Amino acid sequence: MPELAVSTVIFTLRPDETGAMQLWLPAVKRIRSPFDGMWALPGGPLSEEEDLIAAASRTLLETTGLKPRYLEQLYAFGSLERSPGGRVVSIVYWALVAQNEIADAYECENVSWFAADNLPNLAFDHNLIVEYALSRLRNKMEYSRIAHGFLGDTFTMAQLREVYEAVLGRALDPGNFRREMESSGDLVATGERLIGTKHRPPQLYKYDTSVDLTDQGALPTFSEHSANSIKREKTA
Amino acid sequence: MPELAVSTVIFTLRPDETGAMQLWLPAVKRIRSPFDGMWALPGGPLSEEEDLIAAASRTLLETTGLKPRYLEQLYAFGSLERSPGGRVVSIVYWALVAQNEIADAYECENVSWFAADNLPNLAFDHNLIVEYALSRLRNKMEYSRIAHGFLGDTFTMAQLREVYEAVLGRALDPGNFRREMESSGDLVATGERLIGTKHRPPQLYKYDTSVDLTDQGALPTFSEHSANSIKREKTA
Repeated sequence: MPELAVSTVIFTLRPDETGAMQLWLPAVKRIRSPFDGMWALPGGPLSEEEDLIAAASRTLLETTGLKPRYLEQLYAFGSLERSPGGRVVSIVYWALVAQNEIADAYECENVSWFAADNLPNLAFDHNLIVEYALSRLRNKMEYSRIAHGFLGDTFTMAQLREVYEAVLGRALDPGNFRREMESSGDLVATGERLIGTKHRPPQLYKYDTSVDLTDQGALPTFSEHSANSIKREKTA
Repeated sequence: MPELAVSTVIFTLRPDETGAMQLWLPAVKRIRSPFDGMWALPGGPLSEEEDLIAAASRTLLETTGLKPRYLEQLYAFGSLERSPGGRVVSIVYWALVAQNEIADAYECENVSWFAADNLPNLAFDHNLIVEYALSRLRNKMEYSRIAHGFLGDTFTMAQLREVYEAVLGRALDPGNFRREMESSGDLVATGERLIGTKHRPPQLYKYDTSVDLTDQGALPTFSEHSANSIKREKTA
């Protein structure tokens, strides 16, 4: 019988040397066959007692020290030849975490972060899985408020635009972007401004939280999507 | 270790007693525990040698005698309590078949068709799975050409509208619908008309097939989405 594993693609944003934001993700060095010594998406075999999304949440916690801010099922990958030496079907989740959360998180042995557009050769079909997660993320940016998954509770319009630019991989006109976001009805001006050294510190926004951020994936009544496991949690 | 199964939600349209189209789907009577004697979605354990989508295609063939016209991965369902007496994770696909195909298909023992809004209590969490498949279908009708999966190669504007009305569950204004469809750029007038007894037989349309109908789900380069297993096939 094929084995069953749960893996998670965890995206965050980090500035490159010019200060422009880039997508990054963590990989874990394998310490056993197959693909011993290669980097792979964090995850592992599904245990008898663990819900799918609980396994993905645990992976996220073990890899980054974080609770999920955004976590959704991506796809089940099960082609015959993806794992040499024994069939493995992987149910893959994807998660977004804010950069300021990572900074506070613990260091984790055998984990390294890579720029999404400069990944090493990953074990199994994990490069293809990342490619698919990227296409889902880009697609979802176009019609949802998923950008919030990368941001703190409040953010400037420029920070929000940087998220869009990093994910979509192209520069956006600041004026058009601001008009589009302000007319979307998703944002609320907090009345506060970014504390800093600027002469005119920029306005801070937050998302209108009367609509839930998390995509429940399947029906919210399913127990694996219990409020407990999926709800956003503040990390101080 | 949890067991792994592949099940498929197969939708078609049938006229009700007033002639209005309704969504129907087949279920298979279980002949073993758990849920012995109850109706369930067609499917079964994943074998070591079968790709996920190949298993879904086979299920479709065994249940309806048909090759997939539209087939896509829906979701992996894996909550702990969904199967009494042993953990089962089900990777669920969904498929659309045209009513005129079904008419030619063989009868299959232990299979019955039910109106989607009048299902019996199904085994496992299969009622919830159908509900989720319905929400995906309705959502996808709004932005894709998935309606084609229910239709023959050519169809009238009224037949296309009937598909939308059946799936969305509400009446649509014929004039507005025609204008919207004609402006979408997806349809091509064949120049032919429906053969029948009417004084003014309606125009026949087809979809512009320069764009592929099937949603490859994940990346098309994955072997489990080989042209062989997913491509549309005419049934004479």
